[in-house]
Amino acid sequence: MEFIKGGVCAAKGFSASGLHAGIRKNKEKKDLALILSSVLCRAAAVYTQNLVKGAPLLVTKKHLESGTCQAIICNSGNANTCNADGIEIAEKMCKCLASNSEIKENDIVVASTGVIGQPLDIEPIQKAIPSLVSTLSENGSTDACNAIMTTDTKEKEIAVEFTLGGKTCHIGGIAKGSGMIHPNMATMLVFITTDAAISSEMLNKALSNDVKNTFNMLSIDGDTSTNDMAVVLANGLCQNPEITEDGEDFKTFMKALNTVTVALCRMIAADGEGATKMLECIVTGAKTETIAKTVAKSVVCSNLLKAAMFGADANWGRVLCAIGYSGAEVDVNKIDVAFRSRKGKIDVCKNGCGVDFSEDTAKEILSEDEIEILVDLNDGNENSTAWGCDLTYDYVKINGDYRT
Amino acid sequence: MEFIKGGVCAAKGFSASGLHAGIRKNKEKKDLALILSSVLCRAAAVYTQNLVKGAPLLVTKKHLESGTCQAIICNSGNANTCNADGIEIAEKMCKCLASNSEIKENDIVVASTGVIGQPLDIEPIQKAIPSLVSTLSENGSTDACNAIMTTDTKEKEIAVEFTLGGKTCHIGGIAKGSGMIHPNMATMLVFITTDAAISSEMLNKALSNDVKNTFNMLSIDGDTSTNDMAVVLANGLCQNPEITEDGEDFKTFMKALNTVTVALCRMIAADGEGATKMLECIVTGAKTETIAKTVAKSVVCSNLLKAAMFGADANWGRVLCAIGYSGAEVDVNKIDVAFRSRKGKIDVCKNGCGVDFSEDTAKEILSEDEIEILVDLNDGNENSTAWGCDLTYDYVKINGDYRT
Repeated sequence: MEFIKGGVCAAKGFSASGLHAGIRKNKEKKDLALILSSVLCRAAAVYTQNLVKGAPLLVTKKHLESGTCQAIICNSGNANTCNADGIEIAEKMCKCLASNSEIKENDIVVASTGVIGQPLDIEPIQKAIPSLVSTLSENGSTDACNAIMTTDTKEKEIAVEFTLGGKTCHIGGIAKGSGMIHPNMATMLVFITTDAAISSEMLNKALSNDVKNTFNMLSIDGDTSTNDMAVVLANGLCQNPEITEDGEDFKTFMKALNTVTVALCRMIAADGEGATKMLECIVTGAKTETIAKTVAKSVVCSNLLKAAMFGADANWGRVLCAIGYSGAEVDVNKIDVAFRSRKGKIDVCKNGCGVDFSEDTAKEILSEDEIEILVDLNDGNENSTAWGCDLTYDYVKINGDYRT
Repeated sequence: MEFIKGGVCAAKGFSASGLHAGIRKNKEKKDLALILSSVLCRAAAVYTQNLVKGAPLLVTKKHLESGTCQAIICNSGNANTCNADGIEIAEKMCKCLASNSEIKENDIVVASTGVIGQPLDIEPIQKAIPSLVSTLSENGSTDACNAIMTTDTKEKEIAVEFTLGGKTCHIGGIAKGSGMIHPNMATMLVFITTDAAISSEMLNKALSNDVKNTFNMLSIDGDTSTNDMAVVLANGLCQNPEITEDGEDFKTFMKALNTVTVALCRMIAADGEGATKMLECIVTGAKTETIAKTVAKSVVCSNLLKAAMFGADANWGRVLCAIGYSGAEVDVNKIDVAFRSRKGKIDVCKNGCGVDFSEDTAKEILSEDEIEILVDLNDGNENSTAWGCDLTYDYVKINGDYRT
């Protein structure tokens, strides 16, 4: 398996585009994205579990009932959520794209991200769609990626090449992350494309199994958005024998998908709102997988620990505290905690009690921008990893005045 | 019922003291507190539900098995938690106080608050206890209150006078709050004293019923501490007929207790770490009390909403979002949201959709330091209130470098 360029256009038959339609005031910022396959795709998706669901999400859900899809249209700058005419506007986005392309309205995924509860004007979108279609390009992934960004500061694109049944296949994705990301169903926008041939059933199985260990283990601020989804489109153009059941090919596909989703998780965590550090909590020695997951999530979600990591403060008591209130059944007296980064590893807690360590060394390790928090429960063989980021002045700044 | 001065010394027979023992480096900061009753008291307590429990809490729990107590000793500056010798140190604190007073070791509540995982030196405490006892005073509540404070910026003291069976009774309390407070069992230090006569059973019932609507509805940062407890001591010196069952007297006592606990909740919320505003989420029209509580808590816990309140930004979408992911069964299309403060009230959402409102008026209302977030679920008759505070630069600053 090899990392390649191209993002959502790395797979054969996919093109993408992104432009400034005028939803946002800042003319420098693209706000409308399109991803399109030359042929009909199998599609699978997972959605936010927030009871308040964005109108585009409801329309997408209906369109994907068939298990097929050919294009994704997405705007940033407005979530089209909690608006009386939300469904109508989301449907109009699809209708307009359909009438400007060969694609059926029902084969379109529609997504929106941005402020909740402000009417989304359809006019600038309708005016921009012809250009959006005419500028579609095999080099368009980065443009599309830019257009779905909100408070993101970095593009999140990835692709890998792998082999399935003797054929060279590709899978790639783009993501929008930043704030409001919490482990409770893929709460961000993630669009993944592949030219592998795989049945709807197996594509669904691959995605829903994968997110349990990736997007559902990612938290920026504990809030769960109303609009977010992860969608995978598979167009089969690499001509591998279609994956229709468990087996080696499915395993290979799962591994490729996981490489893409873990990379996107890490990019999203590192670019969390105001973040200066990516946190990775690796829990080992758990009695059950559920315990491992619960502990890992609780640690990366703790505001107190996140603030300590911002200050490069080896306050391991907060790790123990977050484990203690996680609700997981653990034996506190068996827990070991260590911090690790490029600069090395330092043990800070053994059997639930503090150990002597050099504050200087700890500070050096924690001053890096990728920090691993290693928790060994010494109580079994199950593991889990969760991703998050530190809590900073800039998180407060960004969210103290997001709307106005 | 009338508010009076005196805090934990307002009730007959109680005295208190607080001094700098040397646990903290700053000699200006008191770090050891004592509250003492001239006669044995009935005692009730509730504790943190964190699996990681401070050693003092474990010792206190054992001492309160008898249902009686006569003194409370509490240090700040060190939580005496996750230390191998924690229990031994907590027991030594009680032993030393016993040998310097008339009080039995088993009738002492011991509490500690501060950093986790750093050994607590017993020596300065042992040296200070004689002075602590000799300076006990009926005017000592504020000294004790100061000695239990950590990152608190304001003293939290309250007392009321009320009548029980023709006798004038008193109930008062002090609290330590600030960070790490989350609705999951009274997660702060609260010491309440009363001269009412009430059986152990009814005192327990009063406290455990009360905290459901007060300390358990209070959140500063979503983290739950390892050390926190609320304790009530009743010494019976006001000579009312002892409350031994439900009835008018019990109702009156519950009301007095609730007046004290709500006042402490509001003080703790207003003085949350880095807070500039107290938030009060009042949920009405819920189908069940559980739904009302779940919704109210979820709203005051949302980092995104807390940051928006800091910025006086009427971002009501975040209120809806927090309701949506709370897990409570609500009909989103029925929800009304309004903001209220001393400056007035503004409706921002009706039936789950935005309504036109003046941003200027909203800004004026939200610029006050006490904000009510009014959520009407329009789905029943149950209500609940939760308290919290905004998320600010200073929260990050305080917690980014708490330990070093």
